[in-house]
Amino acid sequence: MGKLSEVIPIVYEGGELSLLDQRVLPFQETWIKCHDARETAQAIRDMVVRGAPAIGVTAAYGTCMEISRSVGNGLGVEGAKAGIDVLLSSRPTAYNLFYAVNRVLSASRAAAEAGRDPALAAELEAKRIDEENKQAAISMGKIGASLINDGDTVMTICNTGALAVGYLGTALGVIKTAWREGKKIHVVALETRPWLQGSRLTVYELQKEGIPFTLIVDGASAITIQRKGVRSVFVGADRIVDDGSTANKIGTFSLSVVSKYFGIPFYVVAPLSTVQLGAKEIKVEERSPDEVTQIRGVPISTAGSNVYNPVFDVTPPENITAIITEKGIARPPYENSLKSLKAA
Amino acid sequence: MGKLSEVIPIVYEGGELSLLDQRVLPFQETWIKCHDARETAQAIRDMVVRGAPAIGVTAAYGTCMEISRSVGNGLGVEGAKAGIDVLLSSRPTAYNLFYAVNRVLSASRAAAEAGRDPALAAELEAKRIDEENKQAAISMGKIGASLINDGDTVMTICNTGALAVGYLGTALGVIKTAWREGKKIHVVALETRPWLQGSRLTVYELQKEGIPFTLIVDGASAITIQRKGVRSVFVGADRIVDDGSTANKIGTFSLSVVSKYFGIPFYVVAPLSTVQLGAKEIKVEERSPDEVTQIRGVPISTAGSNVYNPVFDVTPPENITAIITEKGIARPPYENSLKSLKAA
Repeated sequence: MGKLSEVIPIVYEGGELSLLDQRVLPFQETWIKCHDARETAQAIRDMVVRGAPAIGVTAAYGTCMEISRSVGNGLGVEGAKAGIDVLLSSRPTAYNLFYAVNRVLSASRAAAEAGRDPALAAELEAKRIDEENKQAAISMGKIGASLINDGDTVMTICNTGALAVGYLGTALGVIKTAWREGKKIHVVALETRPWLQGSRLTVYELQKEGIPFTLIVDGASAITIQRKGVRSVFVGADRIVDDGSTANKIGTFSLSVVSKYFGIPFYVVAPLSTVQLGAKEIKVEERSPDEVTQIRGVPISTAGSNVYNPVFDVTPPENITAIITEKGIARPPYENSLKSLKAA
Repeated sequence: MGKLSEVIPIVYEGGELSLLDQRVLPFQETWIKCHDARETAQAIRDMVVRGAPAIGVTAAYGTCMEISRSVGNGLGVEGAKAGIDVLLSSRPTAYNLFYAVNRVLSASRAAAEAGRDPALAAELEAKRIDEENKQAAISMGKIGASLINDGDTVMTICNTGALAVGYLGTALGVIKTAWREGKKIHVVALETRPWLQGSRLTVYELQKEGIPFTLIVDGASAITIQRKGVRSVFVGADRIVDDGSTANKIGTFSLSVVSKYFGIPFYVVAPLSTVQLGAKEIKVEERSPDEVTQIRGVPISTAGSNVYNPVFDVTPPENITAIITEKGIARPPYENSLKSLKAA
């Protein structure tokens, strides 16, 4: 089954948070150390860590470190507020960030009110979020792996592995789980311009795990499905709303259209915390033109500001075969299936 | 109508061929000089010049320079054979290369047999190919521009402008012609990984011409068509066979699928010399993994040889709304319409 080496990009130990720097992967394995909310915010803003679930776990630890320091300085939980606000503004669209910070803050406040140690409560809650996240990944992996047959070639976009999730992954977690179950699979990874999460990060994780793979440019999806016998496509999600519409990395919508054209299943893998019931519209964040006109600091165009660089696109529910969550597989109509799983 | 500046990348003057070096555009405007078939072959192999029609014109001049030298050295037309063979092997899949070289060689041999100057005949034939190519581009431009309305936003992939054709262009030639006719259009250019013909070369030509444009990564085609009101897609072709199946730059097939999904017209623009009647299958050339794992010499992946890098893909006829040639517009079924135009 290859060399199999677990990627663990977020390590919290002795009041210090260590993050595997995703900006320089796969060329360097550098760890960035954070000791408070501001340092953690900086790491999130600079994309040392990325991926909604991973950002959530990171922010949870950033919050508990800030509370610990504030409490240690005799300023109490509320003394951590200014630092936590900086953390909350580090990636405004990452829903998991708000969710995680607020859970840690609430647990800490509740402890303080009950006369218990708020710093310890914050740390325990951060570790709980980390552990829940890990268990969700393991569960999604097992459930999703049932959809992959021995010998299948599967396609994926962006990085949805441990680097994006903190442990195992979502879509890539499913693929890893199928591999670890002994299925002889082959992975086609889209490079995922502009930030190249596929060619840099997914390739890194596949190599660590020893899974055979083929890297292609995003435009090669159609010919590769056609000529390499791709059986199914697995993608992650940044946000899923009521009807199953899924925001994910730019290129996912196009890939869903191509998958549909070839009649192969298109699966979304995401924890239920990514499903926002009651939400209808998804705002698409745009990032700097530099990501399109430069690669690793090298200019590749003179287009300047004449660039449209949406980070996400929204795949409509009719292009999605199923949504795999830690509590089971949602199938259309998603209005019903997602609500049932959320309530489960 | 903007600044309007003609791009002329192939200039033959005084027995010397000057080629605008497309490897370093848009950052430097460097000219490579060629004086015989071997130097011309080197320039084609290294992609100083690319695009089937441009390669054809370049090869025509390379052949006439070689013949001129051989005849000057008293070795006659056949003395040029070894150099011409090197030229023929420079880009084995470029059909126009064989076509152009053989025309120049035949004209030269015919002149020698008839007691006329074979070097002069070769030069005249090369210039004739260049001129025919130019007139075809002008004609395709006018015919295709009738399909673009004032105010339209149109999308294109790769570079199909003067840099690829020698003059004006095919798909980009249509777009330029619509612009020169006074239509207020907007162009969405796909960057076209791996070689970035879109972000480097198409952007360069659009800026020279003063046409407003937006550059996107290839994966952003669906969201851009959806949100920016793209009205039609224009692409070039490297080879078109009997039923209308069109080989073009990798990413074209995916783009045709996305266009069809949104119900917008997908037009192929190509001279009839690109249409190969009697041909059924199209062999897809693969290039070095380095094009995918490096950009401008900078590594962006450790994927090594685990890369699938097809240069072209083949768009099926049912995804093509019409094929625009210099003699008119072919519509489905292409078996009939292409044959009629070829015979016209």
